[in-house]
Amino acid sequence: MDTVIVFPIYPGVTHLDFTGPHQVLARLPGARTVVASLGGEPVTVDGLTFAGLARLEEVEPCDVLCVPGGFGCVDAMRSDAFLGEIRRLAATARYVTSVCTGSLILAAAGLLEGRRAASHWAWRDQLALFGAIPDPGRVVRDGNVFTGGGVTAGIDFALTLAAELADEATAQAIQLSLEYAPAPPFDSGRPETAAPEIVELVTARNRARMPDRQAIIEQVARERRRA
Amino acid sequence: MDTVIVFPIYPGVTHLDFTGPHQVLARLPGARTVVASLGGEPVTVDGLTFAGLARLEEVEPCDVLCVPGGFGCVDAMRSDAFLGEIRRLAATARYVTSVCTGSLILAAAGLLEGRRAASHWAWRDQLALFGAIPDPGRVVRDGNVFTGGGVTAGIDFALTLAAELADEATAQAIQLSLEYAPAPPFDSGRPETAAPEIVELVTARNRARMPDRQAIIEQVARERRRA
Repeated sequence: MDTVIVFPIYPGVTHLDFTGPHQVLARLPGARTVVASLGGEPVTVDGLTFAGLARLEEVEPCDVLCVPGGFGCVDAMRSDAFLGEIRRLAATARYVTSVCTGSLILAAAGLLEGRRAASHWAWRDQLALFGAIPDPGRVVRDGNVFTGGGVTAGIDFALTLAAELADEATAQAIQLSLEYAPAPPFDSGRPETAAPEIVELVTARNRARMPDRQAIIEQVARERRRA
Repeated sequence: MDTVIVFPIYPGVTHLDFTGPHQVLARLPGARTVVASLGGEPVTVDGLTFAGLARLEEVEPCDVLCVPGGFGCVDAMRSDAFLGEIRRLAATARYVTSVCTGSLILAAAGLLEGRRAASHWAWRDQLALFGAIPDPGRVVRDGNVFTGGGVTAGIDFALTLAAELADEATAQAIQLSLEYAPAPPFDSGRPETAAPEIVELVTARNRARMPDRQAIIEQVARERRRA
Protein backbone atom coordinates (compact mmCIF):
# COMPACT_ATOMS: atom_id res chain seq x y z
CA MET A 1 0.00 0.00 0.00
CA ASP A 2 1.22 3.49 -0.85
CA THR A 3 2.45 5.88 1.79
CA VAL A 4 0.09 8.82 1.31
CA ILE A 5 1.46 12.31 1.93
CA VAL A 6 -1.04 15.17 1.98
CA PHE A 7 -0.21 18.85 1.49
CA PRO A 8 -3.20 21.06 2.37
CA ILE A 9 -2.73 24.42 0.65
CA TYR A 10 -4.63 27.71 0.83
CA PRO A 11 -4.59 31.25 -0.59
CA GLY A 12 -1.43 33.10 0.39
CA VAL A 13 0.66 29.95 0.82
CA THR A 14 4.35 30.35 -0.09
CA HIS A 15 4.58 27.87 -2.93
CA LEU A 16 8.18 26.76 -2.33
CA ASP A 17 7.09 25.67 1.17
CA PHE A 18 5.32 22.73 -0.49
CA THR A 19 6.82 22.48 -3.98
CA GLY A 20 10.24 21.77 -2.43
CA PRO A 21 9.08 18.90 -0.18
CA HIS A 22 6.64 17.74 -2.86
CA GLN A 23 9.47 17.32 -5.36
CA VAL A 24 11.50 15.35 -2.83
CA LEU A 25 8.67 13.13 -1.60
CA ALA A 26 7.20 12.53 -5.07
CA ARG A 27 10.43 10.60 -5.71
CA LEU A 28 10.00 8.36 -2.69
CA PRO A 29 9.32 4.85 -4.00
CA GLY A 30 5.87 3.71 -2.86
CA ALA A 31 4.71 7.16 -1.87
CA ARG A 32 1.76 9.08 -3.27
CA THR A 33 1.49 12.83 -2.81
CA VAL A 34 -1.85 14.64 -2.65
CA VAL A 35 -2.14 18.41 -2.83
CA ALA A 36 -5.51 19.57 -1.55
CA SER A 37 -7.46 22.75 -0.84
CA LEU A 38 -10.85 23.54 0.65
CA GLY A 39 -13.38 22.62 -2.00
CA GLY A 40 -10.55 21.63 -4.35
CA GLU A 41 -10.39 25.28 -5.42
CA PRO A 42 -7.32 26.26 -7.46
CA VAL A 43 -4.77 28.30 -5.53
CA THR A 44 -2.94 31.17 -7.21
CA VAL A 45 0.19 32.50 -5.53
CA ASP A 46 2.82 34.86 -6.87
CA GLY A 47 1.20 34.51 -10.28
CA LEU A 48 1.40 30.70 -10.32
CA THR A 49 -1.86 28.73 -10.35
CA PHE A 50 -2.07 25.26 -8.82
CA ALA A 51 -5.11 23.46 -10.21
CA GLY A 52 -6.54 19.97 -10.20
CA LEU A 53 -6.33 19.94 -6.41
CA ALA A 54 -8.06 17.33 -4.27
CA ARG A 55 -10.99 18.47 -2.12
CA LEU A 56 -9.49 18.69 1.34
CA GLU A 57 -12.86 17.73 2.84
CA GLU A 58 -12.74 14.43 0.97
CA VAL A 59 -9.12 13.49 1.57
CA GLU A 60 -9.01 10.14 3.33
CA PRO A 61 -6.84 9.37 6.36
CA CYS A 62 -3.21 9.66 5.34
CA ASP A 63 0.22 8.66 6.54
CA VAL A 64 1.80 12.12 6.50
CA LEU A 65 0.10 15.47 6.88
CA CYS A 66 2.38 18.32 5.77
CA VAL A 67 1.14 21.89 6.22
CA PRO A 68 3.06 24.61 4.37
CA GLY A 69 3.31 28.23 5.47
CA GLY A 70 3.10 31.68 3.96
CA PHE A 71 1.54 35.04 4.84
CA GLY A 72 -1.85 33.43 4.18
CA CYS A 73 -1.32 31.29 7.29
CA VAL A 74 -3.05 33.97 9.37
CA ASP A 75 -6.26 33.44 7.40
CA ALA A 76 -5.88 29.68 7.54
CA MET A 77 -5.45 29.99 11.33
CA ARG A 78 -8.82 31.78 11.49
CA SER A 79 -10.66 29.33 9.25
CA ASP A 80 -12.67 26.80 11.27
CA ALA A 81 -13.24 24.82 8.09
CA PHE A 82 -9.53 24.58 7.30
CA LEU A 83 -8.46 23.87 10.90
CA GLY A 84 -11.18 21.25 11.19
CA GLU A 85 -9.75 19.31 8.27
CA ILE A 86 -6.22 19.66 9.63
CA ARG A 87 -7.37 18.24 12.97
CA ARG A 88 -9.27 15.43 11.28
CA LEU A 89 -6.27 14.34 9.20
CA ALA A 90 -3.77 14.84 12.05
CA ALA A 91 -5.82 12.56 14.28
CA THR A 92 -4.91 9.48 12.25
CA ALA A 93 -1.70 10.51 10.45
CA ARG A 94 1.47 8.64 11.37
CA TYR A 95 3.39 11.92 11.02
CA VAL A 96 2.08 15.43 11.58
CA THR A 97 4.41 17.85 9.86
CA SER A 98 4.83 21.40 8.60
CA VAL A 99 7.20 23.71 6.79
CA CYS A 100 7.74 27.38 7.68
CA THR A 101 4.70 29.06 9.28
CA GLY A 102 2.69 25.92 8.63
CA SER A 103 3.62 25.13 12.24
CA LEU A 104 1.51 28.10 13.35
CA ILE A 105 -1.46 26.50 11.62
CA LEU A 106 -0.77 23.22 13.41
CA ALA A 107 -0.46 25.23 16.63
CA ALA A 108 -3.73 27.08 16.03
CA ALA A 109 -5.36 23.69 15.46
CA GLY A 110 -4.23 22.74 18.97
CA LEU A 111 -1.78 20.13 17.76
CA LEU A 112 1.49 21.44 19.18
CA GLU A 113 0.83 21.92 22.89
CA GLY A 114 4.01 21.14 24.77
CA ARG A 115 5.78 20.23 21.54
CA ARG A 116 9.04 21.64 20.25
CA ALA A 117 8.55 23.06 16.77
CA ALA A 118 10.38 25.00 14.06
CA SER A 119 8.96 27.86 12.01
CA HIS A 120 10.15 30.76 9.86
CA TRP A 121 12.61 32.82 11.91
CA ALA A 122 10.46 35.94 11.72
CA TRP A 123 7.38 34.14 13.06
CA ARG A 124 8.86 31.47 15.32
CA ASP A 125 8.25 33.21 18.66
CA GLN A 126 4.50 33.25 18.02
CA LEU A 127 4.39 29.49 18.51
CA ALA A 128 4.64 30.07 22.25
CA LEU A 129 1.22 31.77 22.25
CA PHE A 130 -0.23 28.34 21.53
CA GLY A 131 1.75 26.42 24.11
CA ALA A 132 4.33 25.13 21.65
CA ILE A 133 8.06 25.45 22.29
CA PRO A 134 9.77 27.48 19.53
CA ASP A 135 12.90 25.70 18.36
CA PRO A 136 15.51 27.39 16.14
CA GLY A 137 16.42 24.10 14.46
CA ARG A 138 16.14 23.79 10.71
CA VAL A 139 14.35 20.45 11.05
CA VAL A 140 12.85 19.65 14.43
CA ARG A 141 11.46 16.33 15.52
CA ASP A 142 9.30 15.87 18.59
CA GLY A 143 7.74 12.44 18.61
CA ASN A 144 5.71 12.06 15.43
CA VAL A 145 5.75 15.81 14.79
CA PHE A 146 8.36 16.93 12.23
CA THR A 147 8.60 20.65 11.53
CA GLY A 148 10.87 22.59 9.20
CA GLY A 149 12.08 26.19 9.43
CA GLY A 150 11.40 28.89 6.85
CA VAL A 151 10.57 28.05 3.22
CA THR A 152 13.75 26.39 1.88
CA ALA A 153 14.08 24.34 5.08
CA GLY A 154 11.33 22.27 3.50
CA ILE A 155 13.90 20.48 1.35
CA ASP A 156 16.04 19.50 4.34
CA PHE A 157 12.86 18.54 6.18
CA ALA A 158 11.65 16.35 3.32
CA LEU A 159 14.94 14.48 3.01
CA THR A 160 14.86 13.84 6.76
CA LEU A 161 11.31 12.57 6.47
CA ALA A 162 12.21 10.42 3.45
CA ALA A 163 14.89 8.70 5.54
CA GLU A 164 12.33 8.14 8.28
CA LEU A 165 9.65 6.77 5.94
CA ALA A 166 12.10 4.59 4.00
CA ASP A 167 15.80 4.55 4.88
CA GLU A 168 18.90 6.71 4.53
CA ALA A 169 20.00 5.19 1.23
CA THR A 170 16.62 6.03 -0.30
CA ALA A 171 16.82 9.62 0.94
CA GLN A 172 20.40 9.94 -0.30
CA ALA A 173 19.39 8.70 -3.75
CA ILE A 174 16.69 11.36 -3.91
CA GLN A 175 19.21 13.99 -2.78
CA LEU A 176 21.58 12.95 -5.56
CA SER A 177 18.82 12.91 -8.17
CA LEU A 178 17.93 16.48 -7.18
CA GLU A 179 21.64 17.43 -7.07
CA TYR A 180 21.07 18.88 -3.64
CA ALA A 181 24.56 20.12 -2.80
CA PRO A 182 23.58 23.68 -2.02
CA ALA A 183 26.06 26.51 -2.54
CA PRO A 184 24.35 29.77 -1.64
CA PRO A 185 26.16 32.74 -3.17
CA PHE A 186 25.73 34.66 0.10
CA ASP A 187 25.56 33.78 3.78
CA SER A 188 22.37 35.68 4.54
CA GLY A 189 19.96 32.84 5.13
CA ARG A 190 19.53 33.41 8.86
CA PRO A 191 19.23 36.60 10.91
CA GLU A 192 22.30 35.43 12.86
CA THR A 193 24.46 35.48 9.72
CA ALA A 194 22.87 38.23 7.61
CA ALA A 195 24.08 41.82 7.88
CA PRO A 196 22.02 43.84 10.40
CA GLU A 197 20.72 46.16 7.66
CA ILE A 198 19.46 43.15 5.69
CA VAL A 199 17.60 41.86 8.73
CA GLU A 200 16.12 45.31 9.24
CA LEU A 201 15.07 45.54 5.59
CA VAL A 202 13.27 42.19 5.66
CA THR A 203 11.68 42.94 9.03
CA ALA A 204 10.43 46.32 7.77
CA ARG A 205 9.02 44.72 4.61
CA ASN A 206 7.22 42.05 6.63
CA ARG A 207 5.75 44.76 8.86
CA ALA A 208 4.64 46.80 5.86
CA ARG A 209 3.05 43.78 4.23
CA MET A 210 1.09 42.77 7.32
CA PRO A 211 1.16 45.42 10.05
CA ASP A 212 -1.49 43.65 12.15
CA ARG A 213 0.12 40.22 12.09
CA GLN A 214 1.01 40.10 15.77
CA ALA A 215 -2.44 41.35 16.80
CA ILE A 216 -4.20 38.77 14.63
CA ILE A 217 -2.16 35.87 15.96
CA GLU A 218 -2.66 37.01 19.56
CA GLN A 219 -6.40 37.20 18.89
CA VAL A 220 -6.43 33.66 17.49
CA ALA A 221 -4.49 32.45 20.53
CA ARG A 222 -6.98 34.13 22.93
CA GLU A 223 -9.90 32.52 21.14
CA ARG A 224 -8.17 29.14 21.29
CA ARG A 225 -7.74 29.46 25.04
CA ARG A 226 -11.43 30.29 25.47
CA ALA A 227 -12.50 27.38 23.28
CA MET B 1 9.32 49.31 -16.25
CA ASP B 2 9.25 45.80 -14.83
CA THR B 3 12.03 43.31 -15.39
CA VAL B 4 10.18 40.46 -17.09
CA ILE B 5 11.37 36.91 -16.38
CA VAL B 6 9.88 34.14 -18.50
CA PHE B 7 9.85 30.44 -17.59
CA PRO B 8 8.78 28.31 -20.56
CA ILE B 9 7.54 24.97 -19.24
CA TYR B 10 6.50 21.73 -20.94
CA PRO B 11 5.26 18.22 -20.15
CA GLY B 12 7.81 16.27 -18.15
CA VAL B 13 9.48 19.34 -16.67
CA THR B 14 10.87 18.84 -13.14
CA HIS B 15 8.76 21.36 -11.27
CA LEU B 16 11.36 22.35 -8.66
CA ASP B 17 13.62 23.41 -11.55
CA PHE B 18 11.34 26.42 -12.00
CA THR B 19 9.36 26.70 -8.75
CA GLY B 20 12.62 27.28 -6.85
CA PRO B 21 13.87 30.14 -9.06
CA HIS B 22 10.32 31.43 -9.47
CA GLN B 23 9.91 31.80 -5.71
CA VAL B 24 13.22 33.66 -5.49
CA LEU B 25 12.65 35.93 -8.47
CA ALA B 26 8.99 36.64 -7.65
CA ARG B 27 10.40 38.48 -4.62
CA LEU B 28 12.68 40.68 -6.69
CA PRO B 29 11.33 44.23 -6.44
CA GLY B 30 10.30 45.48 -9.88
CA ALA B 31 10.32 42.03 -11.45
CA ARG B 32 7.42 40.23 -13.08
CA THR B 33 7.51 36.47 -13.61
CA VAL B 34 5.66 34.78 -16.46
CA VAL B 35 5.23 31.01 -16.64
CA ALA B 36 4.29 29.93 -20.16
CA SER B 37 3.66 26.80 -22.21
CA LEU B 38 2.89 26.09 -25.84
CA GLY B 39 -0.72 27.13 -26.35
CA GLY B 40 -0.97 28.07 -22.68
CA GLU B 41 -1.85 24.44 -21.98
CA PRO B 42 -1.77 23.39 -18.31
CA VAL B 43 1.22 21.25 -17.38
CA THR B 44 0.83 18.35 -14.97
CA VAL B 45 3.97 16.90 -13.41
CA ASP B 46 4.33 14.47 -10.53
CA GLY B 47 0.61 14.94 -9.87
CA LEU B 48 0.81 18.74 -9.62
CA THR B 49 -1.03 20.81 -12.24
CA PHE B 50 0.19 24.25 -13.23
CA ALA B 51 -2.63 26.16 -14.88
CA GLY B 52 -3.36 29.71 -15.98
CA LEU B 53 -0.15 29.67 -18.02
CA ALA B 54 0.66 32.29 -20.62
CA ARG B 55 0.69 31.20 -24.27
CA LEU B 56 4.39 30.88 -25.06
CA GLU B 57 3.69 31.93 -28.67
CA GLU B 58 2.33 35.25 -27.42
CA VAL B 59 4.94 36.08 -24.81
CA GLU B 60 6.54 39.38 -25.70
CA PRO B 61 10.28 40.03 -25.68
CA CYS B 62 11.53 39.65 -22.12
CA ASP B 63 14.53 40.52 -20.00
CA VAL B 64 15.30 37.04 -18.75
CA LEU B 65 14.53 33.72 -20.40
CA CYS B 66 14.86 30.83 -17.94
CA VAL B 67 14.40 27.30 -19.27
CA PRO B 68 13.93 24.56 -16.67
CA GLY B 69 14.86 20.91 -17.16
CA GLY B 70 13.40 17.49 -16.51
CA PHE B 71 13.11 14.17 -18.34
CA GLY B 72 10.67 15.89 -20.70
CA CYS B 73 13.56 17.96 -22.03
CA VAL B 74 14.19 15.30 -24.69
CA ASP B 75 10.74 15.95 -26.16
CA ALA B 76 11.18 19.70 -25.88
CA MET B 77 14.52 19.32 -27.71
CA ARG B 78 12.66 17.63 -30.57
CA SER B 79 9.83 20.15 -30.76
CA ASP B 80 10.37 22.70 -33.53
CA ALA B 81 7.52 24.78 -32.12
CA PHE B 82 9.04 24.91 -28.64
CA LEU B 83 12.60 25.52 -29.83
CA GLY B 84 11.35 28.23 -32.18
CA GLU B 85 9.84 30.17 -29.29
CA ILE B 86 13.00 29.67 -27.21
CA ARG B 87 15.10 31.08 -30.06
CA ARG B 88 12.70 33.99 -30.60
CA LEU B 89 12.78 35.01 -26.93
CA ALA B 90 16.52 34.39 -26.55
CA ALA B 91 17.22 36.72 -29.48
CA THR B 92 16.18 39.78 -27.49
CA ALA B 93 16.55 38.70 -23.86
CA ARG B 94 19.19 40.43 -21.78
CA TYR B 95 19.92 37.11 -20.07
CA VAL B 96 19.51 33.64 -21.51
CA THR B 97 19.38 31.17 -18.65
CA SER B 98 18.51 27.64 -17.63
CA VAL B 99 18.32 25.28 -14.70
CA CYS B 100 19.25 21.59 -14.82
CA THR B 101 18.75 19.98 -18.24
CA GLY B 102 17.16 23.19 -19.47
CA SER B 103 20.66 23.90 -20.78
CA LEU B 104 20.25 20.96 -23.19
CA ILE B 105 17.16 22.68 -24.58
CA LEU B 106 19.12 25.91 -25.01
CA ALA B 107 21.88 23.84 -26.65
CA ALA B 108 19.43 22.10 -29.01
CA ALA B 109 18.12 25.54 -29.95
CA GLY B 110 21.67 26.40 -31.04
CA LEU B 111 22.17 28.95 -28.31
CA LEU B 112 25.18 27.53 -26.49
CA GLU B 113 27.80 27.02 -29.19
CA GLY B 114 31.20 27.68 -27.64
CA ARG B 115 29.61 28.58 -24.33
CA ARG B 116 30.40 27.10 -20.94
CA ALA B 117 27.25 25.75 -19.35
CA ALA B 118 26.05 23.79 -16.33
CA SER B 119 23.48 21.02 -16.31
CA HIS B 120 22.32 18.12 -14.18
CA TRP B 121 25.38 15.94 -13.38
CA ALA B 122 23.86 12.89 -15.07
CA TRP B 123 23.23 14.76 -18.33
CA ARG B 124 26.00 17.35 -18.39
CA ASP B 125 28.32 15.58 -20.85
CA GLN B 126 25.63 15.66 -23.54
CA LEU B 127 26.08 19.42 -23.85
CA ALA B 128 29.27 18.77 -25.82
CA LEU B 129 27.23 17.16 -28.62
CA PHE B 130 25.89 20.66 -29.34
CA GLY B 131 29.21 22.47 -29.20
CA ALA B 132 28.72 23.72 -25.65
CA ILE B 133 31.40 23.30 -22.98
CA PRO B 134 30.09 21.25 -20.03
CA ASP B 135 31.00 22.96 -16.77
CA PRO B 136 30.64 21.22 -13.38
CA GLY B 137 29.89 24.52 -11.62
CA ARG B 138 26.67 24.89 -9.66
CA VAL B 139 26.01 28.26 -11.28
CA VAL B 140 27.93 29.07 -14.44
CA ARG B 141 28.11 32.41 -16.15
CA ASP B 142 29.40 32.89 -19.68
CA GLY B 143 28.60 36.36 -20.92
CA ASN B 144 24.83 36.84 -20.72
CA VAL B 145 24.23 33.09 -20.38
CA PHE B 146 23.63 31.94 -16.79
CA THR B 147 23.08 28.23 -16.25
CA GLY B 148 22.43 26.27 -13.07
CA GLY B 149 23.22 22.64 -12.28
CA GLY B 150 20.64 19.99 -11.38
CA VAL B 151 17.22 20.90 -9.94
CA THR B 152 18.02 22.49 -6.56
CA ALA B 153 20.89 24.48 -8.11
CA GLY B 154 18.06 26.66 -9.40
CA ILE B 155 17.86 28.40 -6.03
CA ASP B 156 21.57 29.27 -5.99
CA PHE B 157 21.26 30.29 -9.65
CA ALA B 158 18.29 32.57 -8.95
CA LEU B 159 20.01 34.34 -6.06
CA THR B 160 23.04 34.91 -8.28
CA LEU B 161 20.77 36.30 -10.99
CA ALA B 162 18.90 38.48 -8.48
CA ALA B 163 22.19 40.08 -7.47
CA GLU B 164 22.98 40.67 -11.14
CA LEU B 165 19.55 42.15 -11.94
CA ALA B 166 19.45 44.29 -8.79
CA ASP B 167 22.30 44.21 -6.28
CA GLU B 168 23.76 41.96 -3.59
CA ALA B 169 21.74 43.49 -0.76
CA THR B 170 18.52 42.79 -2.64
CA ALA B 171 19.54 39.18 -3.24
CA GLN B 172 20.59 38.77 0.39
CA ALA B 173 17.22 40.10 1.59
CA ILE B 174 15.46 37.51 -0.57
CA GLN B 175 17.76 34.80 0.79
CA LEU B 176 16.89 35.80 4.34
CA SER B 177 13.16 35.97 3.61
CA LEU B 178 13.35 32.41 2.26
CA GLU B 179 15.56 31.36 5.19
CA TYR B 180 17.99 29.86 2.72
CA ALA B 181 20.65 28.50 5.07
CA PRO B 182 20.61 24.96 3.77
CA ALA B 183 21.54 22.08 6.06
CA PRO B 184 21.18 18.85 4.09
CA PRO B 185 20.89 15.85 6.40
CA PHE B 186 23.26 13.89 4.11
CA ASP B 187 26.19 14.73 1.87
CA SER B 188 24.92 12.91 -1.20
CA GLY B 189 24.08 15.80 -3.45
CA ARG B 190 26.85 15.20 -5.97
CA PRO B 191 28.26 11.99 -7.46
CA GLU B 192 31.66 13.05 -6.07
CA THR B 193 30.34 12.97 -2.48
CA ALA B 194 27.63 10.31 -2.62
CA ALA B 195 28.44 6.67 -1.84
CA PRO B 196 29.23 4.67 -5.00
CA GLU B 197 26.19 2.43 -4.51
CA ILE B 198 23.94 5.50 -4.34
CA VAL B 199 25.39 6.83 -7.61
CA GLU B 200 24.84 3.41 -9.16
CA LEU B 201 21.25 3.26 -7.90
CA VAL B 202 20.36 6.65 -9.37
CA THR B 203 22.16 5.90 -12.63
CA ALA B 204 20.31 2.60 -12.96
CA ARG B 205 16.97 4.27 -12.25
CA ASN B 206 17.65 6.97 -14.85
CA ARG B 207 18.53 4.29 -17.39
CA ALA B 208 15.37 2.31 -16.59
CA ARG B 209 13.23 5.41 -16.90
CA MET B 210 14.64 6.43 -20.27
CA PRO B 211 16.84 3.73 -21.82
CA ASP B 212 17.06 5.54 -25.18
CA ARG B 213 18.05 8.93 -23.78
CA GLN B 214 21.57 8.96 -25.18
CA ALA B 215 20.37 7.80 -28.61
CA ILE B 216 17.66 10.47 -28.74
CA ILE B 217 20.02 13.27 -27.81
CA GLU B 218 22.63 12.12 -30.32
CA GLN B 219 19.93 12.03 -32.99
CA VAL B 220 18.86 15.60 -32.13
CA ALA B 221 22.50 16.70 -32.30
CA ARG B 222 22.96 15.08 -35.73
CA GLU B 223 19.87 16.80 -37.06
CA ARG B 224 21.10 20.12 -35.68
CA ARG B 225 24.40 19.74 -37.49
CA ARG B 226 22.60 19.03 -40.77
CA ALA B 227 20.29 22.00 -40.33
